[in-house]
Amino acid sequence: MQRYRLTLEYDGSGYNGFQAQAGQPTVQGAVETAITAFCGQTVRIAAAGRTDTGVHATGQVISFDLDKAWPERTVMNALNAHLTNDAVTVLDCAAVGDDWHARFSAVGRCYLYRILTRVAPPALDRGRVWHVRKPLDERAMQAAAAALVGLHDFTTFRDVNCQSKSPVKTLDVARVDRVGDEVHLIFEARSFLHRQVRSMTGTLAEVGLGRWSIDDVAAALAARDRAACAPVAPSNGLYLTGVRYEEANT
Amino acid sequence: MQRYRLTLEYDGSGYNGFQAQAGQPTVQGAVETAITAFCGQTVRIAAAGRTDTGVHATGQVISFDLDKAWPERTVMNALNAHLTNDAVTVLDCAAVGDDWHARFSAVGRCYLYRILTRVAPPALDRGRVWHVRKPLDERAMQAAAAALVGLHDFTTFRDVNCQSKSPVKTLDVARVDRVGDEVHLIFEARSFLHRQVRSMTGTLAEVGLGRWSIDDVAAALAARDRAACAPVAPSNGLYLTGVRYEEANT
Repeated sequence: MQRYRLTLEYDGSGYNGFQAQAGQPTVQGAVETAITAFCGQTVRIAAAGRTDTGVHATGQVISFDLDKAWPERTVMNALNAHLTNDAVTVLDCAAVGDDWHARFSAVGRCYLYRILTRVAPPALDRGRVWHVRKPLDERAMQAAAAALVGLHDFTTFRDVNCQSKSPVKTLDVARVDRVGDEVHLIFEARSFLHRQVRSMTGTLAEVGLGRWSIDDVAAALAARDRAACAPVAPSNGLYLTGVRYEEANT
Repeated sequence: MQRYRLTLEYDGSGYNGFQAQAGQPTVQGAVETAITAFCGQTVRIAAAGRTDTGVHATGQVISFDLDKAWPERTVMNALNAHLTNDAVTVLDCAAVGDDWHARFSAVGRCYLYRILTRVAPPALDRGRVWHVRKPLDERAMQAAAAALVGLHDFTTFRDVNCQSKSPVKTLDVARVDRVGDEVHLIFEARSFLHRQVRSMTGTLAEVGLGRWSIDDVAAALAARDRAACAPVAPSNGLYLTGVRYEEANT
């Protein structure tokens, strides 16, 4: 038996999220089908982040076991050949030890949220950005984002269906950058609550639009009440960009 | 009567090029249909660059006349509303004088060509880049590109169906940049021959792959022979990024 770690890029637009569901197109389903087509084996893959419907990835990480120890490059090229008709690609493949796990070995997840701020809707980036027609004050958003960094009870920014045992998480990075017509929000944490990034983004957008103050964001966080959250940002601006692992485990 | 100048962004993937053709989806057809839906008038639009099938634009410029002088913002928003189901968006609209023409007033066209250089095929940028699996030496490409700049007979880099009266053109800019996993080629000229950018890109890629020398490129140019051109780069990596006009005319 050989365990493999794969890094995936995907366009989430056509998938009902990462996690396999009977009769629905999912990223997990596409990859597991490709693995079976390659080597005949039926496998269950584990993922660092179970992204929602419409959410993209440029650095999702998965792991799974194969009976036979194929060369890494063979696995990568074969899976990409079987994924030709899917919006999923294998960026990297590495053979790893049996104790390594894409989800449980992860010590950090990085997300990017792209907001397109212009009057004209996107043509090239349709389904890849959140289109906000009004100007956003990215400096005010950055200042408000700073209020979210650190160890907090993030109940306000947690979906009601979140399965996490505790709403207390440490947000390591919350950065807001202007990139041409876009505002990019970058978040990093050991782990996130369900829809936490989109909930925080929706709230920070209110600050960018001048409707919420920085104090309003701090008050919403302190409220520990889902009702205090601003409207959740849409899924299609969100990207899982990377996963961090302890050096010794990668 | 009022003449308008529009700046367009489009994803060329689903269109048989810019120019209207009966029974085929084209960018021109989509925009003219939207104009008719907006104001009832049947118009013919003029464009700065008649992009090929699969070629994209982030800064195409068109002009046309309307019987009634609508506010600029009304024209832009109405056309974007009618283009909701098309991969075309109006970035800007300006009322211009009757002597202004998107094609004939243009004094410069700017193109970007994106090459993705990695083993894995693109998932997010499928149809938006040329995927080259092997590494490219972008410095060698830049050195070879410099040999193309200036006033030359570009017969080698001209499609056999090119309608231009003369193959002699002045290439003002030919730059090659590394941007992460991508190599970007930027070309600027008053005007280009048919498929000139893709022909030059295909030839410069041979240099990047180490199969052609810089002298080979200079010899191909000097040959003034279409047969001396390397394979033409595919359409879907090409973007018309902007058009320049004399200050007084814009």
